[in-house]
Amino acid sequence: MIKVIAKSIIKDGELEKVINLYDELVQKTRQEDGCISYELFQDINNENILTIVEQWESEEHLETHKKTVHFTRIVPQISDKRLNSEINILHKIK
Amino acid sequence: MIKVIAKSIIKDGELEKVINLYDELVQKTRQEDGCISYELFQDINNENILTIVEQWESEEHLETHKKTVHFTRIVPQISDKRLNSEINILHKIK
Repeated sequence: MIKVIAKSIIKDGELEKVINLYDELVQKTRQEDGCISYELFQDINNENILTIVEQWESEEHLETHKKTVHFTRIVPQISDKRLNSEINILHKIK
Repeated sequence: MIKVIAKSIIKDGELEKVINLYDELVQKTRQEDGCISYELFQDINNENILTIVEQWESEEHLETHKKTVHFTRIVPQISDKRLNSEINILHKIK
């Protein structure tokens, strides 16, 4: 099992549009094979910081996810509306 | 419910010591009132990036956690062995 943490800082004025895009991405991704969980969080101290926390059965499932029609259509639209992002792929050690 | 993501970049040569410190922190924190989960992850692309992912019933429980004897004893020892850290407190929106 792997965990993905994808943190984005959204441009001012784009938050509502980005949350709507993530909403569709969340709904479609949860139906994918190998997706254990896929959730959207907002920073309590800065509403423009959004974080997706994902759990996948394997790296192969994650790679397949990145090639889906919904990912390749929605993620570039989100990317246009964020100042930056950082993605970490993790495995549990404790 | 709130989630905390605490990401640290550990100094070269200090990783084993830090994981041992986190091991004690994880065991003791999981016994605290209001702690839903408290897990340690390692980045699959950089072993020196460690991330604690925490879930707490409330911000009040998180604040109490920061005053515990184990937190105030162990966290400064970890801080000495990391290059930097970033902590985000999140609430789920989707």
